[in-house]
Amino acid sequence: MEIGQFKTVALVGRTNTPGIEAPLRSLAGLLAQQGFEVVFEAGTAKDVDVTEFPALSIAEMGARADVAIVLGGDGTMLGIGRQLAPYKTPLIGVNHGRLGFITDIPLKAMQEIIPQMLAGQFEREERSLLEARIMRDDKPIYHALAFNDVVVNRSGFSGMAELRVSVDGHFMYNQRSDGLIVATPTGSTAYALSSAGPILHPQLQGFVLVPIAPHSLSNRPIVLPDDSKVTIQIIGGRDVNVNFDMQSFTAVELNDAIEVRRSKHTVPVLHPVGYSSYATLRKKLHWNEHPSQDASSL
Amino acid sequence: MEIGQFKTVALVGRTNTPGIEAPLRSLAGLLAQQGFEVVFEAGTAKDVDVTEFPALSIAEMGARADVAIVLGGDGTMLGIGRQLAPYKTPLIGVNHGRLGFITDIPLKAMQEIIPQMLAGQFEREERSLLEARIMRDDKPIYHALAFNDVVVNRSGFSGMAELRVSVDGHFMYNQRSDGLIVATPTGSTAYALSSAGPILHPQLQGFVLVPIAPHSLSNRPIVLPDDSKVTIQIIGGRDVNVNFDMQSFTAVELNDAIEVRRSKHTVPVLHPVGYSSYATLRKKLHWNEHPSQDASSL
Amino acid sequence: MEIGQFKTVALVGRTNTPGIEAPLRSLAGLLAQQGFEVVFEAGTAKDVDVTEFPALSIAEMGARADVAIVLGGDGTMLGIGRQLAPYKTPLIGVNHGRLGFITDIPLKAMQEIIPQMLAGQFEREERSLLEARIMRDDKPIYHALAFNDVVVNRSGFSGMAELRVSVDGHFMYNQRSDGLIVATPTGSTAYALSSAGPILHPQLQGFVLVPIAPHSLSNRPIVLPDDSKVTIQIIGGRDVNVNFDMQSFTAVELNDAIEVRRSKHTVPVLHPVGYSSYATLRKKLHWNEHPSQDASSL
Amino acid sequence: MEIGQFKTVALVGRTNTPGIEAPLRSLAGLLAQQGFEVVFEAGTAKDVDVTEFPALSIAEMGARADVAIVLGGDGTMLGIGRQLAPYKTPLIGVNHGRLGFITDIPLKAMQEIIPQMLAGQFEREERSLLEARIMRDDKPIYHALAFNDVVVNRSGFSGMAELRVSVDGHFMYNQRSDGLIVATPTGSTAYALSSAGPILHPQLQGFVLVPIAPHSLSNRPIVLPDDSKVTIQIIGGRDVNVNFDMQSFTAVELNDAIEVRRSKHTVPVLHPVGYSSYATLRKKLHWNEHPSQDASSL
Repeated sequence: MEIGQFKTVALVGRTNTPGIEAPLRSLAGLLAQQGFEVVFEAGTAKDVDVTEFPALSIAEMGARADVAIVLGGDGTMLGIGRQLAPYKTPLIGVNHGRLGFITDIPLKAMQEIIPQMLAGQFEREERSLLEARIMRDDKPIYHALAFNDVVVNRSGFSGMAELRVSVDGHFMYNQRSDGLIVATPTGSTAYALSSAGPILHPQLQGFVLVPIAPHSLSNRPIVLPDDSKVTIQIIGGRDVNVNFDMQSFTAVELNDAIEVRRSKHTVPVLHPVGYSSYATLRKKLHWNEHPSQDASSL
Repeated sequence: MEIGQFKTVALVGRTNTPGIEAPLRSLAGLLAQQGFEVVFEAGTAKDVDVTEFPALSIAEMGARADVAIVLGGDGTMLGIGRQLAPYKTPLIGVNHGRLGFITDIPLKAMQEIIPQMLAGQFEREERSLLEARIMRDDKPIYHALAFNDVVVNRSGFSGMAELRVSVDGHFMYNQRSDGLIVATPTGSTAYALSSAGPILHPQLQGFVLVPIAPHSLSNRPIVLPDDSKVTIQIIGGRDVNVNFDMQSFTAVELNDAIEVRRSKHTVPVLHPVGYSSYATLRKKLHWNEHPSQDASSL
Repeated sequence: MEIGQFKTVALVGRTNTPGIEAPLRSLAGLLAQQGFEVVFEAGTAKDVDVTEFPALSIAEMGARADVAIVLGGDGTMLGIGRQLAPYKTPLIGVNHGRLGFITDIPLKAMQEIIPQMLAGQFEREERSLLEARIMRDDKPIYHALAFNDVVVNRSGFSGMAELRVSVDGHFMYNQRSDGLIVATPTGSTAYALSSAGPILHPQLQGFVLVPIAPHSLSNRPIVLPDDSKVTIQIIGGRDVNVNFDMQSFTAVELNDAIEVRRSKHTVPVLHPVGYSSYATLRKKLHWNEHPSQDASSL
Repeated sequence: MEIGQFKTVALVGRTNTPGIEAPLRSLAGLLAQQGFEVVFEAGTAKDVDVTEFPALSIAEMGARADVAIVLGGDGTMLGIGRQLAPYKTPLIGVNHGRLGFITDIPLKAMQEIIPQMLAGQFEREERSLLEARIMRDDKPIYHALAFNDVVVNRSGFSGMAELRVSVDGHFMYNQRSDGLIVATPTGSTAYALSSAGPILHPQLQGFVLVPIAPHSLSNRPIVLPDDSKVTIQIIGGRDVNVNFDMQSFTAVELNDAIEVRRSKHTVPVLHPVGYSSYATLRKKLHWNEHPSQDASSL
């Protein structure tokens, strides 16, 4: 890509967020003034009552916008990322609130950094997505994408789930647990991390299975290559359900199978020049930045 | 206690268990023949269609039986243990199926071991229980005992629970997680172990808080002294519920508080002479029994 | 105890610590002015070149001081605590540097808080110690106390250690690992925590065994009652050694056995009124203090 | 590859292993009889006193053998795999003793399976290696390959190591710990697994950093893409050393840096048709194979 590649810029804000209107309007004004065509995601436009810019549906945004700037948190990015994935529209994330894992531009610095990025000074990375479908009697009954994770889990009101897990047609194990997380590198720092999963580098060509409170202590997280196809069949437990990015849910029945694989789509995310995913991890996870000056006082 | 202390022996079997009738009848016959007064727990009697021995309610058993012999698994022991706790009736556990953590007498050896135990050759230990009550607007709305654990957890259909935890009136932390387990030593090898909790020796004067998939990686299991009173207030999350030994459930609402403390009751459990809780752990958890003969082949 | 119970106050400072002289002198001056008899631990006196107050050996301090105030970090407290334990001299910990788990009075607040405490406004807790002895051919060859932990571990230059662990004469298991930590409640937040051990409340009547990188995934931390006697026999591995509070070390040989039990001594630690060990944990472990205002941005 | 591709077969046995001579001779005889040219690794030939077949150095084997059959355990495979890697000689592993992760052919079945494999019925996989070099004052002072892992760790006689970790020139963090493991997928089921690392599928294009007993609880395992270059600088701690497959060791000094990356070499490993790495994991880690018949007895 080259300087001048971005002509139409879409703005998206987290819904129902007091205080989000001002920075959205201010950014829109700045960009319009600099000659960009500014459009709003329809829900955002309605939410903050913006009428002076076109309000577009996701499909219209996907067709028309060269880049989408998201104000909010990681959750907002996940939602819009899943929807825009088929259109390959790159995303820029501005965090409204605290630093996110993927919304890495501070609100305060937005006015300075965004124009630089739109002028071509950015680093681009592709984030992978998962694609899941639920099979009942060998027929697909549900289909969804996930940016973070696909989670099969028991209801809090029932005993353990029992899951039969296969990969690429090879039987892996029967697992009794609270559930099983299938996470992308992006999702590896979300729910999967809380369940003792490893961190996956964003560019790793793989995804991870993380059992939740497994009955067998040797049911450990397993990182699989990107071209793996995971099949999770419900063979025991009541009220088991499947979550996508912890945002949409669907109930499954005994013998249903959830098939998960990497989506053919990826989500392009743009970062300021000098971006380091390690710097973000360091801040979010409170990793040590400085040598200990006083190790003896540990 | 002395030889001859047991006159009336109650028999309890796991419900709906094919094949449990024969050993129950056989044990009852043997004990009757040896001069013990044999009674059946009413549900068991009905389940296996026994009419030749008295069928007693829990309260009657508690009043009349000197010891209760349980055929089943740990779940059966938990259930009867909770109910008989106020009567101080000691329990003997025979495992029908695989070895349990507390049902430690193999079915095969029952005919030999039980008479020896009833003749006074046993080791007695007291297992602690938890007592929980749910407070709404400062009034108790529910009360229950737990032999293994009291578990506050989110429904699988909703986001994280947020819990405000205090101990003895001291604020501990706000925890965002799938939930929180409060486990007795007996329960420390059940669900709590799957959630990365420590094993507590049965005679430890304490219990453990084990967070389930906590958002903060430093929310680690905490072992508290026996006289601690834990208060868990629901300050966020939808569809949170409280489980007792994973067998009974109740829904709670925002701002409800669950108070957990050690029950004044304990459950006396009798073991064959030479009993070692380590031997049970070793078998259940596949710990190494023998020195590695071939360490280099690791 | 009553107001006026403290007449002689001993001061101890962390060794080789730039900047420790001024607060030590200032505190000594303040206390002398208030009528206390002030003495210095001999090493500290030499270190900071104090000659105007008596310099006492540990034994003299133990005999003469009513309380010892320690300026430094947890390491300094551990060292002096082990040495003063036989004398029952209570300790007050002032942290010079960052907050410690047991040195809980900030340097800045020292001048205000210490006089209040010496006037009787304090909370006293007893911290337990471990006592270890190393047996070779059934004879004791070494003996030491530990405030935090007794650690048996392999050298970094050799393969796994193999340890035969028994408790109270009951065989527990053979463990192949990097080593085994036996930690007091105080030590549970030190090395044991890094090895996935639980936090033990300071008043728990127990201690914990925490395996370090065990070969068997089910070799989990085990919390034992206070009256347990743990025997760890070296049955494999080269260059195994035993550490006490990570400060003193001794090499052991094949077949040596390390016996660990709770010491009969405890270390009295005095805290300001309103002290909460949870508050310290919260700060040290970055636990959430406030409800999440913006859970959706997770 | 096609049937008939293997003409010269090298045999390698674990050293100093009572009972290894008979199966080695028997296999050699069988293969010679079937028309293969059989050669022995020189050390093995000497060890079991074989003179009737040529005894070759590693370099000669690499040049001349079309395949190497290893009798022993995973350790033997690691050693020979590292040495033969530059020659691309494929390996077949027969386990003498218990099942290994990569020595997957049982001794008993060897006579039947090996001829089938040499006739072309096999599945081939490439296992990755790590390459490490130690830099002092910006000059390389040591170089080694690792099949399982490169481990930087403290001696058991000293305090924590402090390591400054960078990836691809990006600073990651300063880590205080017992050490840091860099493991291949093959090594992910060895020492790394004991230190709470994830399992990596053998075909994953990546490797994993696993901290050993890290002081910071958020220093979690991190899986990196295959083309990453990791730099671990020693910035604190005494007696730190570096291990390669836990078999060779070298001491490092303050400020030395260990650079680790994927080796350009891979080790081809041949498996019987129908091989599944999940089946091996299931057996080695005691994963459940069958649905629980009796979940209620948990």
